[in-house]
Amino acid sequence: MEKNNSSLLAQQKFMRMAIDEAQQAKILNEVPIGAVVVHDGQVIGRGHNMREKFQDVTYHAEMLAIMEACTNLHSWRLEDCDLYVTLEPCIMCSGAIINARIKNVYYGAPDPKAGAVDSLYHLLTDSRLNHQVNVYSGILGDECSQMLKSFFREIRRRRKEARRKK
Amino acid sequence: MEKNNSSLLAQQKFMRMAIDEAQQAKILNEVPIGAVVVHDGQVIGRGHNMREKFQDVTYHAEMLAIMEACTNLHSWRLEDCDLYVTLEPCIMCSGAIINARIKNVYYGAPDPKAGAVDSLYHLLTDSRLNHQVNVYSGILGDECSQMLKSFFREIRRRRKEARRKK
Repeated sequence: MEKNNSSLLAQQKFMRMAIDEAQQAKILNEVPIGAVVVHDGQVIGRGHNMREKFQDVTYHAEMLAIMEACTNLHSWRLEDCDLYVTLEPCIMCSGAIINARIKNVYYGAPDPKAGAVDSLYHLLTDSRLNHQVNVYSGILGDECSQMLKSFFREIRRRRKEARRKK
Repeated sequence: MEKNNSSLLAQQKFMRMAIDEAQQAKILNEVPIGAVVVHDGQVIGRGHNMREKFQDVTYHAEMLAIMEACTNLHSWRLEDCDLYVTLEPCIMCSGAIINARIKNVYYGAPDPKAGAVDSLYHLLTDSRLNHQVNVYSGILGDECSQMLKSFFREIRRRRKEARRKK
């Protein structure tokens, strides 16, 4: 029981770091999504969505965190690593997670339109592939979800205001 | 008919460029996979597999070609672009293709174990996603396939020789 509690605390600690990353994206006016890669209890990769800033379609939070983790471990294999991400990964990021052989994925909010872990597909647990990932969803899920909702609410408000001024 | 012929010639021309990229990978002792992104009849992105060299799991041919195309167009949207790749894209690369809204994908050889376009999944034509891609397979397919087969045959030969010398 104690072990479960401490494990839950660790999950929340790392998800909070992913949320901090998402806040960095928000400051840049990007959709607030953040991710960290953890190895032996240490964060070895961080990333936040920077698609608009760099106009690069691959600059999702998970991809940047995975790339940094590869650099730090000097290896494309992230076999004993966990990934924490505030939003359910898309197809591209799920593919990178599988290719990197990440062990555990913890995500916050579901993504009904593009999520490829539980919503549209179950890519991370497909037994036909050469690697399967343990998936844990809903870690600080409400907080992750609210962060996204308030971001899009603010965008709609600004658009409405801009239309009114015309 | 003439249009079809010239279109076929153009397809083969660009696939040959993707094969040239794959040969660059082979020189580096990487699995020979190459890709190009084409916009308005011009190549605006090239890439070959460099996963081992850089120990980065995201360094697939398609990803590198797409990233270069984004840089050249100053946009993450590659809406009027085509991608030519020697091997059927994996999940990660299929996701990047969808996210970038690439119009047409032409690939050479099928990948029965990890292909996500026709073999394991049909990700590029999933009507639930906000973008669908036109897919053309088997462009210079035999040549693309042979290139991979001979690469793996050579690896097996070297391993056998190394074992014999022990």
